[in-house]
Amino acid sequence: MFTEKDFKNTIREIPDFPKEGILFYDITTLLKNPEAYQELISQLAESLRSQKVDLVIGPEARGFVIGSAVAYAIGAGFILARKPGKLPAEVFDFSYGLEYGSDCLEIHRDAIKPGQRVAIVDDLLATGGTALATIKLAEQMGAEVVGARFAIELCDLNGRELLRGYDVKTVIKY
Amino acid sequence: MFTEKDFKNTIREIPDFPKEGILFYDITTLLKNPEAYQELISQLAESLRSQKVDLVIGPEARGFVIGSAVAYAIGAGFILARKPGKLPAEVFDFSYGLEYGSDCLEIHRDAIKPGQRVAIVDDLLATGGTALATIKLAEQMGAEVVGARFAIELCDLNGRELLRGYDVKTVIKY
Repeated sequence: MFTEKDFKNTIREIPDFPKEGILFYDITTLLKNPEAYQELISQLAESLRSQKVDLVIGPEARGFVIGSAVAYAIGAGFILARKPGKLPAEVFDFSYGLEYGSDCLEIHRDAIKPGQRVAIVDDLLATGGTALATIKLAEQMGAEVVGARFAIELCDLNGRELLRGYDVKTVIKY
Repeated sequence: MFTEKDFKNTIREIPDFPKEGILFYDITTLLKNPEAYQELISQLAESLRSQKVDLVIGPEARGFVIGSAVAYAIGAGFILARKPGKLPAEVFDFSYGLEYGSDCLEIHRDAIKPGQRVAIVDDLLATGGTALATIKLAEQMGAEVVGARFAIELCDLNGRELLRGYDVKTVIKY
C-alpha cells in the first residue's frame, strides 16, 4: 500500500509559483512515477467504485489528466470543463474564484443527460471554488453529483467546508 | 468488439471550426459515451502492451485526456507537454507546425531519464507536426520512442509519412 508519505515523497514543492507567496505542489513528478501514478488513480477510483458513476467531469487542464484516467478506471464516460472558446459546440459557462485570481469554464450543453450520476475529479482542492461552480452547473443540467475527488487537499483553505453536503475525498493532505 | 464505424457514430462533425474550411471531429461526444471511451482507451492500450512503455507523453490539452488514461491502462507514468509558461520547473521547449497555424510546447527537463521507453499519445494525427516535434525532443532527452498512438487519423494530411520509421497506430481513420 502506497501511503500519503510515499505520495508526498514524489511531489515537488516549488515556492512562489505561479506568484510570490504561493507554495506550489507540483504533481508532474508524481505522474511520471509509474508506481505513484497507478496508486493515485487506483485509490481515487476505488473511492468512487460504490457510487455507480456515469460521468466524470475534469476541469482544464490538470483535471483532464486525473479525471480521464479515473473515468477509465471506473468504467465511466469523461466530460471536459474547458477554458472559454475551446469547445466546438454550444456551451454553458460558469465563473469561479480561485486560490489566486478567478476564471471561467465551459461545458457542452449536451454533455449531461438529466439523472446521470456525475463525479468531479481534479488534481487540487484549494478553496473549492472551481469544484463548487462545476457541481452547481452539473446540477442545473440535471446531474446527480455523487462525489468530488482530488489528488491533493490544501486543508487550511477550507474547500471541504465550501463543498459541505457533498461526498468529498482527497488522497494527499497538506 | 467496437468497430471503426461504431466509433464514428459517436463523433460529432463540426464544419468551419476552429476556422472556415476546417471540418472538426469533436471527440467530446465519444469521451462522454462510457462504452466508446472504454473501448478507445483499451484499444490504444492493447496496441502498446508489447512495447514495455515506461512513460506516455500527452500534448496539451486533448492529449492529456487520452494520454493519461492510456498510461494508466498500461501501467506507465505520464508526462505533460504543456503550453508555454504553465510548467513550474525548468523546461525544454519546442515549436511545431499544425494543420492550422503553429505553436510551442514545453516539457520538464527532468521528465525523462535516458534510456526510458516512451510513447506519444494524442487525440489526433493530422500533419504529424506536433508528434514529430515531441518525438525529437524526447529523443534529445535520451528517450527511446517506441510508439505514437492517436485516436483519430486524418489520412489526407500524410502525418504517417512524416512519422516514417516510428511505430504509428491510429483507431479511427478519416
